[in-house]
Amino acid sequence: MLDFNYMVSTKVLFGKNKIERLGEELKQYGKNILFVYGRGSIKKNGLYDSVTNIFSRNSIVYHELPGVQPNPRITSVRQGIKLCREQNIECIVAVGGGSVIDCAKTIAAGFYHEGDPWDLFLLGDSTIKKALPIGTILTFAGTGSEMNGNAVISNEETEQKLAIHNDVLRPRFSILDPTYTFTVPRNQTAAGTVDIFSHILEQYFSPTKDAFVQNRVAESLLKTCIYYGPIALTEPTNYEARAQLMWTSSLALNGLLSYGRITDWATHGIEHAVSAAYDVTHGAGLAILTPYWMQYVLSEETTEKFVEYAQNVWQVKGKNDLAVARKGIEKTREFFTDLGMPKTLRDVGVQENKLEDMAEKTVLYGDVGKFKKLGKNDVLTILKNAF
Amino acid sequence: MLDFNYMVSTKVLFGKNKIERLGEELKQYGKNILFVYGRGSIKKNGLYDSVTNIFSRNSIVYHELPGVQPNPRITSVRQGIKLCREQNIECIVAVGGGSVIDCAKTIAAGFYHEGDPWDLFLLGDSTIKKALPIGTILTFAGTGSEMNGNAVISNEETEQKLAIHNDVLRPRFSILDPTYTFTVPRNQTAAGTVDIFSHILEQYFSPTKDAFVQNRVAESLLKTCIYYGPIALTEPTNYEARAQLMWTSSLALNGLLSYGRITDWATHGIEHAVSAAYDVTHGAGLAILTPYWMQYVLSEETTEKFVEYAQNVWQVKGKNDLAVARKGIEKTREFFTDLGMPKTLRDVGVQENKLEDMAEKTVLYGDVGKFKKLGKNDVLTILKNAF
Repeated sequence: MLDFNYMVSTKVLFGKNKIERLGEELKQYGKNILFVYGRGSIKKNGLYDSVTNIFSRNSIVYHELPGVQPNPRITSVRQGIKLCREQNIECIVAVGGGSVIDCAKTIAAGFYHEGDPWDLFLLGDSTIKKALPIGTILTFAGTGSEMNGNAVISNEETEQKLAIHNDVLRPRFSILDPTYTFTVPRNQTAAGTVDIFSHILEQYFSPTKDAFVQNRVAESLLKTCIYYGPIALTEPTNYEARAQLMWTSSLALNGLLSYGRITDWATHGIEHAVSAAYDVTHGAGLAILTPYWMQYVLSEETTEKFVEYAQNVWQVKGKNDLAVARKGIEKTREFFTDLGMPKTLRDVGVQENKLEDMAEKTVLYGDVGKFKKLGKNDVLTILKNAF
Repeated sequence: MLDFNYMVSTKVLFGKNKIERLGEELKQYGKNILFVYGRGSIKKNGLYDSVTNIFSRNSIVYHELPGVQPNPRITSVRQGIKLCREQNIECIVAVGGGSVIDCAKTIAAGFYHEGDPWDLFLLGDSTIKKALPIGTILTFAGTGSEMNGNAVISNEETEQKLAIHNDVLRPRFSILDPTYTFTVPRNQTAAGTVDIFSHILEQYFSPTKDAFVQNRVAESLLKTCIYYGPIALTEPTNYEARAQLMWTSSLALNGLLSYGRITDWATHGIEHAVSAAYDVTHGAGLAILTPYWMQYVLSEETTEKFVEYAQNVWQVKGKNDLAVARKGIEKTREFFTDLGMPKTLRDVGVQENKLEDMAEKTVLYGDVGKFKKLGKNDVLTILKNAF
């Protein structure tokens, strides 16, 4: 096990009607709030009214930043920072999924940065020293953003999608009410499940051999996705399925799996290049790329890890290690396909002549992947195979 | 999944030489420290010198409370509170295992309680509103006290061993350096492993049926004990074994397994009555009682849970559910015995004529257990079977 410092500071309020605690939680952060949300689904399902009523009852002044897109843009961030400065905002409340929360986090950090907020993504995480406090109300299980210090933002001008990570970005509190995800459409539910699954894999496929408890816990979370993902698709109002996926999404990316080992993240790197250029749903991009990444990095050297995966997660049995490993990859692809996810980049409208450019963007700041280091040609091969 | 509020606020500094961070961590809590430790092993292994040198280098004034016993006594707590008040202590540093940490926690809470600190154990957890900040340096993997808000204290006058629980008792930081456990003797290492294992079981055997991810994660931690416990016994300086057990001890009892479900804790309740009367090593008491508790609560109604346990943790196969369940219990007993743990209460010097009294003490404040509720006669039967 590698050395680590553990700090999971987000307070999670999990369960039905936990929103009733919102006023109480906000008290310590101030009375002047930026209220960030997406493209209006919270107005349809009544959550907008619930939140603003709580603001009013607690004499909280709020300013709205609506319309945050999936694959949130740096332009929304700039807009949010401007609002925060003009209105002397003390705290940000993000109501939505990972995109809304990531946008809020970047506003929170950008507020204290003198230059353009895109600088933060280019200058490195240590540039971030301070951020406005954030509270979230989660409406989508997948990104894990509700309990970590990560944010991913797209820059439409440069066709880049980059991430920042810093503990100061962890939400102070997150309200996780699984009933808010009852209305998430089937394909989005599937994409969220794939996103959770991929977050776990990115940490499970690690070059750190000594990570027994981390591996077993990762397998537990993978099994939860396998069990409850399909149930949430066919029974969207099944509370237990929604609750298990929601809590698993938080556990999958709050540090629990990564502390004490090196993690990979190549597939996410490649997918970000794809969805920066095509606005593909992140989970769909991951569903396409993950099995191709697996096939590409499977080698004599890595077979053991793939066997561990196939046996412990998919109960694959057999004497030939390579065959067991391949079966595990096949099971993964089947799982994604059964969830209704696309199989190839072509399926989601990617054009072949863009692959080279995407490969280049993926490795713009250096090789990706730690389980297996990938240069531009490696990435291009994976993209071509996935096309 | 039941509703819950998640807050694991302890910062963990995990790895070799993390003690170098002690001065830095203490800065925010003050310069006047109560230094609590056990019966001198830290003087032999050099840890006492390391800690006091760091105190000196950081101009920290410290007052010592040495000699805290295993199964720590309320008398040590009283002594500590007196010292804190006389010396205007601002923060407590506990160096040792769970006993030392539990003693420190009770001092921290008792400092703000006007009456006798034993009141806290009788009046209920809500009596505790505030506590001095605590930092810990862990030298023993087992209790999980380094990352939670629990403390167990014995009262030698009343022959009682009772627990308090409150989030304000969570250490602010805990330094987990697995090398500090290299010198833990074989039988103590075994007892610690049983303690971790038992903490997991107390939460795994739950009446809450819907706890899929919690169950899978619990099984992960059980497997880690099964894999690394024996290695730590035969190779006491195996870093990975010590590290895996240490981190598992923290994860087993920091809330991760309990959030979202009801937990049992009957076996711990019974063991506390035993070790209050006989000063038996806690882990040894648990090793004796756990299989007897399992046998007693195994019924038509509970077979399913025992089958889940036997299959997922011990890979027991078979068509007869009851036989599979029994095999899982047998495997548990074998695991404890292979670790060198005693098998019966008689083995650890308990006298038969004390069993009735222990059963009475166990249920003094009501029935114990939530997976299966146990009254005095149930407890007495378990004790007699275990005798």
